[in-house]
Amino acid sequence: MTEPPFRRVVVIGAGLMGTSVALALRRSGVEVLLEDADPGNLRVAVSLGAGVPVTPPVSSGDATGGGPADLSDPTDLVVVGVPPAALGTVIAEALARFPAAAVTDVGSVKAAALADTRAHASAGPGLDRYVGGHPMAGSEQSGPLAARADLFDGRAWAVTPHVDSRPDAVAAVDQLARTCGAFPVQLSPGEHDEAVALVSHLPQVASTVVAGLLTTAAEGHLVLAGQGLRDVTRIAGGDPELWTQILSANAEPVARLLHEAADNLHRVAHNLEKRDAGEAGLADLRNSLERGATGVRRLPGKHGARPEAFSPVPVLLPDRPGELARLFADVGAAGVNIEDVRIDHSPNTPAGLVELWVHQDTVPALLEALAHHGWDVHG
Amino acid sequence: MTEPPFRRVVVIGAGLMGTSVALALRRSGVEVLLEDADPGNLRVAVSLGAGVPVTPPVSSGDATGGGPADLSDPTDLVVVGVPPAALGTVIAEALARFPAAAVTDVGSVKAAALADTRAHASAGPGLDRYVGGHPMAGSEQSGPLAARADLFDGRAWAVTPHVDSRPDAVAAVDQLARTCGAFPVQLSPGEHDEAVALVSHLPQVASTVVAGLLTTAAEGHLVLAGQGLRDVTRIAGGDPELWTQILSANAEPVARLLHEAADNLHRVAHNLEKRDAGEAGLADLRNSLERGATGVRRLPGKHGARPEAFSPVPVLLPDRPGELARLFADVGAAGVNIEDVRIDHSPNTPAGLVELWVHQDTVPALLEALAHHGWDVHG
Repeated sequence: MTEPPFRRVVVIGAGLMGTSVALALRRSGVEVLLEDADPGNLRVAVSLGAGVPVTPPVSSGDATGGGPADLSDPTDLVVVGVPPAALGTVIAEALARFPAAAVTDVGSVKAAALADTRAHASAGPGLDRYVGGHPMAGSEQSGPLAARADLFDGRAWAVTPHVDSRPDAVAAVDQLARTCGAFPVQLSPGEHDEAVALVSHLPQVASTVVAGLLTTAAEGHLVLAGQGLRDVTRIAGGDPELWTQILSANAEPVARLLHEAADNLHRVAHNLEKRDAGEAGLADLRNSLERGATGVRRLPGKHGARPEAFSPVPVLLPDRPGELARLFADVGAAGVNIEDVRIDHSPNTPAGLVELWVHQDTVPALLEALAHHGWDVHG
Repeated sequence: MTEPPFRRVVVIGAGLMGTSVALALRRSGVEVLLEDADPGNLRVAVSLGAGVPVTPPVSSGDATGGGPADLSDPTDLVVVGVPPAALGTVIAEALARFPAAAVTDVGSVKAAALADTRAHASAGPGLDRYVGGHPMAGSEQSGPLAARADLFDGRAWAVTPHVDSRPDAVAAVDQLARTCGAFPVQLSPGEHDEAVALVSHLPQVASTVVAGLLTTAAEGHLVLAGQGLRDVTRIAGGDPELWTQILSANAEPVARLLHEAADNLHRVAHNLEKRDAGEAGLADLRNSLERGATGVRRLPGKHGARPEAFSPVPVLLPDRPGELARLFADVGAAGVNIEDVRIDHSPNTPAGLVELWVHQDTVPALLEALAHHGWDVHG
C-alpha cells in the first residue's frame, strides 16, 4: 500500500467540481474535509463518500481572514470550488485560515480569480501559497449529485502559477491533478484565459446563439434536424447563471473573439448576398469553409492521436436489448479495440445505425470479423 | 416475396447520395440503372452492387433534352444526385428522356433547383412529373466509396412538391423515401429552404467560423480542448466545395440567419464589455444563455422522444479489447435498451469513460445490474 499523496485536503464548496475532486482524492486514500455554505450540498457530498464535514472550521484561524491558525494542522492543500464571483474572497480566507497549506481553486477563469484574491489578501498572509487550477472537464449538469470520481480521468488540468507562487505550492497542485487522474498543463493565468476563451467560451456562446434561434422555429421544421445541429447545440444546455459568471470573468478575451466570429458570420452573409456580382464572393466563401476544415483537423484526439488515425465502420443494428452486446462480443473476440462509438439519434427508426471508430490499421480485421458473424456493414 | 415498389429506377450521379439511394433500393429488390459522367465513380458504384451502368442512355430520347423516348421503358422513377449547380440541367434532361417517369433529386436546396429546372425545361415536357426531395442524412465524407444502404434509415426525407406536381409523382417520391428506410416530410420548396437554413446551413457556418478561429491558435492552447469544442466543430470538417454550392443556392434565408446570429454574438460581446457599467448587460447576457438552453430542449430526440426522457449513466471502462463487450453483455442480460453511447475522446487516458444513455425509467434497473457485475458507476 503506497502512502497517500496528501496528508489532508480541505475542499471548500461541494458542488459538481469540488465534490468530484473530493471523490477522486478519496479514491487514492486521501483524507478529505468538506465545507459548503449550503448544508444540503454538504450532506449529499458526505453521503456520496466524498469526505467528512467541517463544523466548526478545522483551523483555529478567523474564518473571515484574520490571524494565524494552528500550525500543527496536517492540511497540505485547500481546494476552493465556489462560483466565480466568490472565488477571490474564499481563496483569501483559505490562505489566512491554513497558513501552512497550498491553496488552489477549480474555477474556469484565472486572471480575475488571482486579481480578486490579491485584493482580498493584501493585508493577510501568503499569496505565494496560491496557485490557480482549472480541470478541463465538466457537465451540463451541476451540484454534488452529478459529481463523479472519474470526471477528470484523462483530461487536461490547467495549473496557473503567478509570478510569486512558491515551487512547493505548484508541485502540490500538479500532484492534485495527477491524483485526480488528469494531466497537468502549466500556463500563466493570462495565457490560460486566452486559451479557454478560444477552446471553451467562444464555442459556448456560438452554440448558445445557434440554439437560441431555434426558439422561434416551427415545430414542423425541427423534424428535419440531423446530428449536425444536435452536436453544435449540445453545450448550449449548460447552466445560464454559471455561464454568465464565467463569461463575465473572462470578458475581454471572450468579447474580442466574439466580435471576430460575428464579423466572420457577417462576411459569409455578405458573400452570399453578392454572389451574383461575380466569383470573388464565392471564392471568399470557399476560403472560409476551407479554413474551418483546417481548424478542426488541428484538434488533438483521444490518446493525443490525430483524429485521422481513426476510421468509422458503420453497422446496422436491430433496436432491441442485447444487440449491442452481441456486436461488442463479436468485436472483442476479434481482438479489435474500439476507440469510439456513435449511435444515430434520428427519430422514428426501427433500427439503429452504430458507427464503430477504430484505428485505421484494424479496419480490415474488424470488417472480416463482422462479416463472419453476419453483421450488416458498409465501409 | 413481395413485389418491389418500383419496376425500374434510374439514378443519375453516383456520388455519396446517389449511390446510397441505389444501394437502399437494391436492398428491396428494385432494378437500378446507374449513370455518372465520371467513369471512376460509376465503376465503384457498380462494384458495390448499387446497380447496372447505362451506356448508352436507356431511353431513345435525346440526352440533351430533345424529343420523346421509348414509352415502353419500364422506368418509374429517376433520381438525380448531382452537385447543386448542375441540378436544373440534369433534372430537365431527365424529364425529357423519360417521359413516363417521375423525376426527383436529392439536393440540399429546393427552390433554386425548381427554378433552374423550370428555366431549362420551359420548352420541354412534363415539369408536373418533377417533385423535389432531400434526405436529411449525409457525411463529412463524399463519393461512392462512402455510400451506405442504411444511410437514410430512420431519417427524415423532405418531399417538396411544387404547385403543378402530379399526385402520382408525389406518391412515387414518398415511396422512394420509405423504401430507403426514411420517413417522408412534405413541405413546399420555399418552406424547406427556410427550415434547412436554420437546422443545417446556419449550424454549418457557425461550426465553420468557430473552427476557423482555431487555425491561428497556439498548439499548447489546443491541448485544453474538451468534448464541447469537438462537438461544436465536427461538421466544419465537411467538403468546402460542396458547401459553397449548397450555401450559394440558399443564399437569402441563410444570409438573413447569419446576420441575426452575428448580431447576437456582437450583442453578447457588448454585454461583456459594458459589464462594469451595471446589471443591465449581465441580465441581457443571462437572457441570451437562457434562450439557448430553451432552444436546445426543443430538438426532437431518437424515436421522436424529447431528450429529457433519456438519462446518462457513466461507467469507467479499462481501455482494452473486450471490456465494452463485457459491459454490453451485462446490460443486455439485464434487459435494458441502450439509446446512445458516448465514449470520451480525451487524450492521454489509460481508461475510458463511457456514458450509457437509457430511458430514465430503466436507470434503477441498469444501476443495479452494473453494480451486481462490479462496474465502476456514478450517476
